[in-house]
Amino acid sequence: MGSVYGHIFRLSSFGESHGVGIGGVIDGVPSGFTLDFEAIQHELDRRKPGQSAIVTQRKEADEVEFFSGIFEGKTTGTPIGFLVRNTNQKSQDYNSMNAAFRPSHADFTYQQKYGIRDPRGGGRSSARETVARVVAGAIAKQVLATIGVRIDAFVDQVGSIRWEGTWSTDLAQVRENNVVRVPDMETAEQMENLIREVRKDGDTIGGCVRCVITGTPVGLGEPVFDKLHAELGKAMLSINAVKGFTIGSGFEGVEMRGSQHNDAFTAGGATLTNHSGGIQGGISNGMPIDFRVAFKPVATIMTEQQTIDTNLEETTLTGTGRHDPCVVPRAVPIVEAMAAMVILDFYLRQKATF
Amino acid sequence: MGSVYGHIFRLSSFGESHGVGIGGVIDGVPSGFTLDFEAIQHELDRRKPGQSAIVTQRKEADEVEFFSGIFEGKTTGTPIGFLVRNTNQKSQDYNSMNAAFRPSHADFTYQQKYGIRDPRGGGRSSARETVARVVAGAIAKQVLATIGVRIDAFVDQVGSIRWEGTWSTDLAQVRENNVVRVPDMETAEQMENLIREVRKDGDTIGGCVRCVITGTPVGLGEPVFDKLHAELGKAMLSINAVKGFTIGSGFEGVEMRGSQHNDAFTAGGATLTNHSGGIQGGISNGMPIDFRVAFKPVATIMTEQQTIDTNLEETTLTGTGRHDPCVVPRAVPIVEAMAAMVILDFYLRQKATF
Amino acid sequence: MGSVYGHIFRLSSFGESHGVGIGGVIDGVPSGFTLDFEAIQHELDRRKPGQSAIVTQRKEADEVEFFSGIFEGKTTGTPIGFLVRNTNQKSQDYNSMNAAFRPSHADFTYQQKYGIRDPRGGGRSSARETVARVVAGAIAKQVLATIGVRIDAFVDQVGSIRWEGTWSTDLAQVRENNVVRVPDMETAEQMENLIREVRKDGDTIGGCVRCVITGTPVGLGEPVFDKLHAELGKAMLSINAVKGFTIGSGFEGVEMRGSQHNDAFTAGGATLTNHSGGIQGGISNGMPIDFRVAFKPVATIMTEQQTIDTNLEETTLTGTGRHDPCVVPRAVPIVEAMAAMVILDFYLRQKATF
Amino acid sequence: MGSVYGHIFRLSSFGESHGVGIGGVIDGVPSGFTLDFEAIQHELDRRKPGQSAIVTQRKEADEVEFFSGIFEGKTTGTPIGFLVRNTNQKSQDYNSMNAAFRPSHADFTYQQKYGIRDPRGGGRSSARETVARVVAGAIAKQVLATIGVRIDAFVDQVGSIRWEGTWSTDLAQVRENNVVRVPDMETAEQMENLIREVRKDGDTIGGCVRCVITGTPVGLGEPVFDKLHAELGKAMLSINAVKGFTIGSGFEGVEMRGSQHNDAFTAGGATLTNHSGGIQGGISNGMPIDFRVAFKPVATIMTEQQTIDTNLEETTLTGTGRHDPCVVPRAVPIVEAMAAMVILDFYLRQKATF
Repeated sequence: MGSVYGHIFRLSSFGESHGVGIGGVIDGVPSGFTLDFEAIQHELDRRKPGQSAIVTQRKEADEVEFFSGIFEGKTTGTPIGFLVRNTNQKSQDYNSMNAAFRPSHADFTYQQKYGIRDPRGGGRSSARETVARVVAGAIAKQVLATIGVRIDAFVDQVGSIRWEGTWSTDLAQVRENNVVRVPDMETAEQMENLIREVRKDGDTIGGCVRCVITGTPVGLGEPVFDKLHAELGKAMLSINAVKGFTIGSGFEGVEMRGSQHNDAFTAGGATLTNHSGGIQGGISNGMPIDFRVAFKPVATIMTEQQTIDTNLEETTLTGTGRHDPCVVPRAVPIVEAMAAMVILDFYLRQKATF
Repeated sequence: MGSVYGHIFRLSSFGESHGVGIGGVIDGVPSGFTLDFEAIQHELDRRKPGQSAIVTQRKEADEVEFFSGIFEGKTTGTPIGFLVRNTNQKSQDYNSMNAAFRPSHADFTYQQKYGIRDPRGGGRSSARETVARVVAGAIAKQVLATIGVRIDAFVDQVGSIRWEGTWSTDLAQVRENNVVRVPDMETAEQMENLIREVRKDGDTIGGCVRCVITGTPVGLGEPVFDKLHAELGKAMLSINAVKGFTIGSGFEGVEMRGSQHNDAFTAGGATLTNHSGGIQGGISNGMPIDFRVAFKPVATIMTEQQTIDTNLEETTLTGTGRHDPCVVPRAVPIVEAMAAMVILDFYLRQKATF
Repeated sequence: MGSVYGHIFRLSSFGESHGVGIGGVIDGVPSGFTLDFEAIQHELDRRKPGQSAIVTQRKEADEVEFFSGIFEGKTTGTPIGFLVRNTNQKSQDYNSMNAAFRPSHADFTYQQKYGIRDPRGGGRSSARETVARVVAGAIAKQVLATIGVRIDAFVDQVGSIRWEGTWSTDLAQVRENNVVRVPDMETAEQMENLIREVRKDGDTIGGCVRCVITGTPVGLGEPVFDKLHAELGKAMLSINAVKGFTIGSGFEGVEMRGSQHNDAFTAGGATLTNHSGGIQGGISNGMPIDFRVAFKPVATIMTEQQTIDTNLEETTLTGTGRHDPCVVPRAVPIVEAMAAMVILDFYLRQKATF
Repeated sequence: MGSVYGHIFRLSSFGESHGVGIGGVIDGVPSGFTLDFEAIQHELDRRKPGQSAIVTQRKEADEVEFFSGIFEGKTTGTPIGFLVRNTNQKSQDYNSMNAAFRPSHADFTYQQKYGIRDPRGGGRSSARETVARVVAGAIAKQVLATIGVRIDAFVDQVGSIRWEGTWSTDLAQVRENNVVRVPDMETAEQMENLIREVRKDGDTIGGCVRCVITGTPVGLGEPVFDKLHAELGKAMLSINAVKGFTIGSGFEGVEMRGSQHNDAFTAGGATLTNHSGGIQGGISNGMPIDFRVAFKPVATIMTEQQTIDTNLEETTLTGTGRHDPCVVPRAVPIVEAMAAMVILDFYLRQKATF
């Protein structure tokens, strides 16, 4: 019962990796907004499998059909229903895996929770589910752009290779020019090499995505529980394979003293540093919102592992199927999508004042 | 409008640091449960200021009055209203601070968002607000104990001093025997010395709290958005001063390969390692739930800082008032409280099945 | 933003009368339940236009496509996405009506609220939207049947002709044997004649649907705001053309004295009378839940009416298109569907206890 | 778990009739609003027992203590916690009633649902609970007044005596000048005599409250489920003793033809008639919102009734305690309060647009 997200701009998502498709209903979309359908497709393409040699070689058209809520290209304020059909399921790839639970995957917990599961390709627990998020996020992103909000995610770590440069939106094109989506071509090459090496071993590797949001108005966030960064954290942690979220100084700030960490104000309300990551007391302060998301290595690997069968007795399993050796390049548009959904929802909540 | 937390077990909290008090309404409490009022007070005492030389010297009785929902010591299933009165407000401490925004505090964002704020001691943005969470969490903890769920938080880092030992519930008493709440007396002494030194400088320091939950039934969590660790993340990030959340391997898992990171199953469903932190696919797997929370250094420091006044023009400010040099010792019961609220809420949601 | 219904069993609906179709996502469906697809289609057929001479002559196949949440005929506990395509839209029928607001229809208010609307056939405000409710309700009905809950709605009034007989489930077949769906063949004939006469005049007429639910367990309902009859009332009032809702004695009970109205208990907890309509204090008491719903005459009539154009200046309008002269025969399955959604949602909420 | 009401302007209520008191938390109150505390007290006084000879003779001070969310008389946008203490409980009045379930009261259903109940004076199911609604509603009413919304409820029926005059706000003072709260002194006298007679018999009688809301902006309401009148219906049906709700023509409209019932538009968007009751398609149209609420006769009567004891075996019971012979005079401010909460919540939801 947890497939509805948002308070006002609200996505109700559905779909499994090897069923008819992935889709959803977006309620609370502002009315009278002219949608850029190509831009939506562009975001789906950024998430799509088969884009490059370092991601899964599954091919999916990932074209979205809209069913409602749009009249002559404009949103009508009524719910937008949509579907992205699955076209390239190879269910037979999963046959050998049905009888055993894949380690660190959701097979076991879904089976225990629901007493039943769609075993084809992970079913609902597959990252294919994020297609619906990308559609909703692409719409949110467009709406936000009209008020000057810009959302850029990028890879800043793969394994232990980390890019620690200074982000600026000038680097957005560099990021798109390499298959890893890191804002530096040299680091990109190193990361790509690492991913290729890991894949050759039939193995996988983790990575981090950083996201910077500029242009957010001051005042978004609803303390004390629905703090802006708390909801961003939930949104990111709800993405497959995410194990950590930090905002601003994060775990590094722990080692700082208050006198170093405090962001001194300058006239007008900007701050000299941004250890706060653009949010103070759960409310945006107008500085760039800046957070990082940790993705674990993909669970499906091509080497033999110790596991259990459906009787919970020990067996072994060797992964098959076409999987990403590292998820972060394709996670970039997903992080942006969830960020857009959160920021727009809080923007609309903030308008619900007298 | 963000002061309500939870779906079924739901806290609606209120109160400011220097007003009448902090309180709330807890709706959805299971009926017929005999409350242990001393245990509730014990949790409030763990959070209370003035417990030791390394925390703020404010004195608060922090006694809770219950208004409803309890008959002859038992919960009736109707909402529990409660209040913890503020008794030791020194509002004058804040006079000098009214005219200037404290750097990295919520003064500026509250003022911008609401156009008005209660300037006494931070008002609603003060960590005193967490008193309501501790009351609700203490009740949740008791209910959870009856099904074998146990929640232990402890400090594992202050500044750059980190305890990396192996937690076991045997260490719970050690944790309570030192003022830092770290499960090792030697580390405790080092951390305490660091905190004293920082305080002497009129400065503050960050820290981390780790939380381990045992006995959680398999199957809690509601994918795809309300994943158990996503909601735990939101709950933790909603606590004052928190800048990061990780579950299981967290940011360290990023550097691992899938073959190292995967938790091999053993007969019955347990796993050899617990990089997943007790949750797979957003659903508890029966292993200990294990997460870490990063707290930044407290913003109020006793040295002069560059800031702005209410006209957004530059000025300087030197903090006054009685503040914690490091929040983590007092954050331990707050982390446990929020964890208990989340786990109980998901337990009840899981029961809402056919 | 009001297209999501329910707390645990939750429908997120979408679609307009003359767009691609009507559909939705149902989240919170219990897992492992074998669906009877014919029974779902049967409910859609009961709602379908063109069933008899006294309803609209539009023809719609009204076949439902399911996209997710079902594996080998069983629910998996994940969201069920679905679509019922529109096949028989005659958009040109509405051309003349685009320029003027139809009196007592939602054209004017939608235009004012959203600043835009899909003018074809009422768009989102069309009763065609209820198709999604019937699909979700048909699933809820099946789940409820397994615990012995049975829901029967029927027409008990058309214009001033009222059937005041005693309902029993034996009459269910009689109800289905006549086109008005009244549990008495003689009354059915009178009502049918009235509807034919009204239609001949290019006019429309109102009516009432009564609904009786048997087998509801004692204890459903969540006071003080989410009382069972309050939520049933909301659910019914959300159906197109509904202007009133009563439970048990309703407005007639107003004229009674307490000594007449009180339902005396008999051993075991049943009551001699059922003026309460099966609910006391907002909680089901095990007696039949019994309520009535008032439907106004359909707004679209075939005679000339005074109205305004989109500049809010006066004009006249004569309705065209194919409309029901009286909605209640087709409203019967819609009332049952919403009742089923409410009862199942409260049944699941009641299970969310310790 | 149903004690939270509203989406943005949200009341979380608590309290029992014979416990410490009744209170709540109001989240989502607009900030910077100067509260008129006397006006809040005035609404509580209108609801208060002991106002006249025809209502219960219990005496309650019904003074509200505010705990938070207000600074120097102004709302700060943070939650408002409050308590109205119970001062005049005579618990012994209820002793004889503990052992038996009062017919048509909530004793039986609460006991069955929760397995426990506070038996003193009905506990949570007592109409005393509505005190919290009146406080929240009084605040909502004040906020709404600043945008020209005015809410007037009045009694229009007691037993079979009905006032069918034309309401205008000129009659507001007449309504307050008689103890029944009907806008006509002569009818008031007849109704008062009926109530006195009924009380002399140890009996009770039902009645109706009509409510007229003027000045509501066009465009409030969130189809398809959260239609404005659907939520008003739920709000009213959640008030103790309510068995029916109609808007506009209600059950009388059923007997009309479309050609009679349709509200013809006049230039500018007003309508000649108001059978719609100010709402079309679930959205306010700018005409007065006009609805009626049916209250059954109070269940507690002073004559012997057939009932069952806690073993569900037959016994008899004669009511004691101080009860209203007819609730509608005191229900007037409660109906206004719930209406205000609904309208303000929808007003704020409508502002949550781009």
